[in-house]
Amino acid sequence: MQNLIYVIPIIGVVALVFAFIKAKWVSAQDAGDDSMKDIASSIQEGAMAFLAREYKVLSIFVIIVAMLLGIGNMSGEDRSPMIALSFVVGALASALAGYFGMRVATKANVRTTAASRGGLASGFQVAFAGGSVMGMSVVGLVVLGLGSLFLLYQMIFVDAGMATILNTLTGFSMGASSIALFARVGGGIYTKAADVGADLVGKVEAGLPEDDPRNPAVIADNVGDNVGDVAGMGADLFESFVGAIIGAMVLGLGFTVAGESGLIEPIALPLLLAAAGIICSIIGTFFVRLKDDKSNPQHALDGGAFIAAALMAGAAFGLAKWLWPEVGATVGTGAEAVTVHWYHIGIATIVGLATGVVVGLITAYYCSLDRNPVNGIAEQCKTGYATNVIAGVGLGMQSTAVPIIAIVLGVIVADQVAGLYGVAIAALGMLSTTGIQLAVDAYGPIADNAGGIAEMSSQEPEVRERTDKLDAVGNTTAAIGKGFAIGSAAMTALALFAAFMQQSGLTSINLASPQVMVGLFIGGMLPYLFSSMAMKAVGDAAMDMIEEVRRQFREIKGLLEGEAKPDTARCVDISTSAAIKRMMMPGALAIVTPVVIGFGMGAEALGGLLAGVTISGVTLAIFMSNAGGAWDNAKKTFEAPGGFTMKDGSVHEKGSEAHKAAVVGDTVGDPFKDTAGPSLNILVKLMSVVALVIAPLIAAV
Amino acid sequence: MQNLIYVIPIIGVVALVFAFIKAKWVSAQDAGDDSMKDIASSIQEGAMAFLAREYKVLSIFVIIVAMLLGIGNMSGEDRSPMIALSFVVGALASALAGYFGMRVATKANVRTTAASRGGLASGFQVAFAGGSVMGMSVVGLVVLGLGSLFLLYQMIFVDAGMATILNTLTGFSMGASSIALFARVGGGIYTKAADVGADLVGKVEAGLPEDDPRNPAVIADNVGDNVGDVAGMGADLFESFVGAIIGAMVLGLGFTVAGESGLIEPIALPLLLAAAGIICSIIGTFFVRLKDDKSNPQHALDGGAFIAAALMAGAAFGLAKWLWPEVGATVGTGAEAVTVHWYHIGIATIVGLATGVVVGLITAYYCSLDRNPVNGIAEQCKTGYATNVIAGVGLGMQSTAVPIIAIVLGVIVADQVAGLYGVAIAALGMLSTTGIQLAVDAYGPIADNAGGIAEMSSQEPEVRERTDKLDAVGNTTAAIGKGFAIGSAAMTALALFAAFMQQSGLTSINLASPQVMVGLFIGGMLPYLFSSMAMKAVGDAAMDMIEEVRRQFREIKGLLEGEAKPDTARCVDISTSAAIKRMMMPGALAIVTPVVIGFGMGAEALGGLLAGVTISGVTLAIFMSNAGGAWDNAKKTFEAPGGFTMKDGSVHEKGSEAHKAAVVGDTVGDPFKDTAGPSLNILVKLMSVVALVIAPLIAAV
Repeated sequence: MQNLIYVIPIIGVVALVFAFIKAKWVSAQDAGDDSMKDIASSIQEGAMAFLAREYKVLSIFVIIVAMLLGIGNMSGEDRSPMIALSFVVGALASALAGYFGMRVATKANVRTTAASRGGLASGFQVAFAGGSVMGMSVVGLVVLGLGSLFLLYQMIFVDAGMATILNTLTGFSMGASSIALFARVGGGIYTKAADVGADLVGKVEAGLPEDDPRNPAVIADNVGDNVGDVAGMGADLFESFVGAIIGAMVLGLGFTVAGESGLIEPIALPLLLAAAGIICSIIGTFFVRLKDDKSNPQHALDGGAFIAAALMAGAAFGLAKWLWPEVGATVGTGAEAVTVHWYHIGIATIVGLATGVVVGLITAYYCSLDRNPVNGIAEQCKTGYATNVIAGVGLGMQSTAVPIIAIVLGVIVADQVAGLYGVAIAALGMLSTTGIQLAVDAYGPIADNAGGIAEMSSQEPEVRERTDKLDAVGNTTAAIGKGFAIGSAAMTALALFAAFMQQSGLTSINLASPQVMVGLFIGGMLPYLFSSMAMKAVGDAAMDMIEEVRRQFREIKGLLEGEAKPDTARCVDISTSAAIKRMMMPGALAIVTPVVIGFGMGAEALGGLLAGVTISGVTLAIFMSNAGGAWDNAKKTFEAPGGFTMKDGSVHEKGSEAHKAAVVGDTVGDPFKDTAGPSLNILVKLMSVVALVIAPLIAAV
Repeated sequence: MQNLIYVIPIIGVVALVFAFIKAKWVSAQDAGDDSMKDIASSIQEGAMAFLAREYKVLSIFVIIVAMLLGIGNMSGEDRSPMIALSFVVGALASALAGYFGMRVATKANVRTTAASRGGLASGFQVAFAGGSVMGMSVVGLVVLGLGSLFLLYQMIFVDAGMATILNTLTGFSMGASSIALFARVGGGIYTKAADVGADLVGKVEAGLPEDDPRNPAVIADNVGDNVGDVAGMGADLFESFVGAIIGAMVLGLGFTVAGESGLIEPIALPLLLAAAGIICSIIGTFFVRLKDDKSNPQHALDGGAFIAAALMAGAAFGLAKWLWPEVGATVGTGAEAVTVHWYHIGIATIVGLATGVVVGLITAYYCSLDRNPVNGIAEQCKTGYATNVIAGVGLGMQSTAVPIIAIVLGVIVADQVAGLYGVAIAALGMLSTTGIQLAVDAYGPIADNAGGIAEMSSQEPEVRERTDKLDAVGNTTAAIGKGFAIGSAAMTALALFAAFMQQSGLTSINLASPQVMVGLFIGGMLPYLFSSMAMKAVGDAAMDMIEEVRRQFREIKGLLEGEAKPDTARCVDISTSAAIKRMMMPGALAIVTPVVIGFGMGAEALGGLLAGVTISGVTLAIFMSNAGGAWDNAKKTFEAPGGFTMKDGSVHEKGSEAHKAAVVGDTVGDPFKDTAGPSLNILVKLMSVVALVIAPLIAAV
């Protein structure tokens, strides 16, 4: 077993090498003509400028929190100030993954445009290769970072024992979560402020088409796609992946065989499963290619992800059979004792994979152009603005039912086969193919950017047509990706919750205790407060952006005529400043609340808080994400060139009253699906991680 | 003590006599000219027709459920089939209260118009007298019904003991909840379908003013005010009042003095507090009058409610001092034992009253015309439709924070002084002055109707001006009333939850158990599903209404010219049918889910379900209710005759683009605040009551 543990970081390195090769390949592709290169470099500069400023602020934050963590864990049983190191490494790894992913995504966009001149298949290949870099960087750095630290702490804490090792390792998860908070919330604010500014003034007021180079906010808008959907999504799944692994590792601590404790297998297995997931994901990427220009990119993406998942299911059974104690291992005592056999691990993994697929499919159903929900919303546009909004809200609310039931069924089955450890393994199973999943997600904004660059650099119409096709697939994958991110956040939060219980020495949290009720109520309310802050941030930042764009149209002579260039850097700067400044408050809310409740009211109340925030946050996130997705695609039925024929034969046309209603719905949905909704994933996970990290401290107080 | 128990139903009768005298007085007032009488009788007929059809469907429902309850409790410890009687009496009492209240409200409306011809003060007096009938009918029937059944069961179950008496009494609460479900959900669907139909076609398409007699949906709209805001709100508070009393009574079962159990005081005290609240409310109503036409109606209403609350605080201390065991009574065992002294009861009552006031004030703050939140929304209308919607959603979400914190603080303090019994007493304290609270709430729709009748019967402008003044106050009281209804639903649900725990024999519900987590997740999701059903019902019904109104304008010759009369009965019928038909599914969801989870997964999972639905439902209800209220009043800034001057000096005018944006916000908010939001109160309480009723059965299984 111990030798096998050395393999873990090596597989992390394999993923990074794979990402490096892909990145090199992308860089080697043709970047097109000068005009394309110009635009692309503006986008890249904007994106990198945002990252630079974000990381500057973050570095101060990371140093302060690391010091606090170090001091807080200076002494005490099962604790070590080395947790500060874990925290810094976790933050660094997540930041690095974001940096790599973004850097390559902003190279892949223009190269996708250039390759699309030669056909759909070649454009697709570049875009997906760009996405793969993000995917593999994330999973590679997670497994390399966690695996190395695990080895290191095994050496350092030879005497202190496994509890100390795992407590110290939780810092990695908190470091990753901190970056995720800033990347997701900040990224969400950035992208929507730019988007609203570009749309409302550029498109609606000045009558410019989408991605028109005369629009001063258009570069910021394209930067936003990268900041929000590449770096933000990457940090989100990085956090989920880490959380699921750490949660399962901590829960692995309690196993015994024939009464003997100190088993390493249940603790190391989650890391090995994660490593196996990397190999499966890499294999999956080889199946993602278009045979010819007539093939459907969606099928290519789905196929690769499916193959990776199928391989993973097999790998989980194989690994468990190989490593798990032959006679099974037992966790818990008395009536609550559960004996877990190797095949239970495999089943739990499959449960997680299946839950992820169901949640993704439901999201796709609610957000797809050719399905009843979106069609119904599009119909409602014909009766007016308000009816469209009401229908979207109603639909979003309805859409919470099946995903929640799927998650709940997953929890029940996983718990039946392997107790809380099973739930954690299911969470990990769901996330095990994150490598390819995230590659598919990151493909979306690259294709979106490619379309923007084609438009801005005035390519032939057929190029834009091809990038539009690539982008259309990207929209659906984005919606599915959001559903998957929420589902995985829910499962990860449950795994972290169980780990928190164990580490704080609680065997039961009594719902009937008023303290727990109080925790539940406050936890249930926080996602609303958090969302309102995020949406207000977008509103305020968008206002600044709107004014700036109006000012440029007014003051820069010849801009609308195409004779002068807009000051795009100014718009990029507005979005950047707003995002950095306005993510502070919601961020503080997420970090401070569990600390205050935990130390002020005790571990039980903190448990109530976590349960409340998870339940309320996940439901609210599904609602906002799906409502936004449905509005977005309902609007698309009115924007297809030449009109869009609905199932009932009616044709939806651009510029109609119904189209205007659809645009209003889409605009309402933007901060729902791209800012507040995804940020809730972070809120839910971050609060659980903070609780897990402070659990030993609370237990000691 | 036992003699005092006989006084309880007598005080119920006193309230009913008071209501009867008020009703007689209202009837004796001048009902105005023939045109006014005509319109008023259409409204009354419509309202009564709705009640008749609703009660017909309900009676079948009540008979079936009563039979099931009777059979289910045929045998077993501490149970009796007499619970079916309690159920029927509870349903009957709530239905009767609705009938009385609605009958008098639909008389008071036209008489308010008539009295307003003589001045503001006289109009105000009639409207408030009408409202008082609803208020006193509700509290009178609650106390009479519960008090009589309690006496009856004391005689019947002399040997079986107090547990049987209380278990059997819980049926009353379930009966009341069933009516509330139908009245609130059905009423909410009714009123908004009519409202949207009247507004969208009559006002927007045909350009008619508000309440124009040529508008075919206008009678249905006015009926809707009564159905939703009088009968619906009445049934809602009836249910809260009953639930809080029953919850506290059941929790009173566990007290001992010097180790001796069988104390009657803690069980009877809640009933006596409720009775005392009636007396305080009646006294309060005498202080509600306008000195002259220049007085502010809002101050008169607030003054009466405040006096009643102050009296009640004193009464609670007095009653407790008089009746509570001198040495205190103890509940719980071991480390969790709590000794409650008489003054603790008084403190808990004040905590409840204060929590109610805070929640009401916050609601008023978020929904008042002259405050920052509404002003901010009104400002956002200037930047467009979508920004207004986003701002309202953000505001509504933000507004959940303080009420939840107030409720949580109330729970903490009440629990500190008297354990879970204290929480139940706080819930009862909040509701103890329901008599006058509901009178103030019901005043609103009466004043609203009075304005409608003034318009439809072409009164002098000064009459309409006066009714507008009365109505403006009504809008604020309606918003506060909604906040109060949510707050009281939350507290009642907590009391019922505690009672459920006790009756199902649970001392702890372990949040860490996956079953409980599953319950919590499903519970957290249900309010979303329930709201989506309610909103879809409104959408569909409104569509039917829109088509019918369009048809009438098209087919009835001379209608728009005022030469022909519209077929208002047809519109009333559409709203009625839609409301009755479409409340079935959400209703079934509320009743069946706890039964399925309770018997399928056990009492602990059911406890999780209740906690989940309470937390999620209360937060969602506050969000929807306040967002709706804020949009409503933001729109009003654009509709003041002659323009409305904002704080920053800008003038909001009718017909501007910003006004249109405000109308969209208001239309979105309508089903939020009048259908889905209030229905969630019922969902939360009804599920708790169903759980309480089936608790002994689950414990037996």
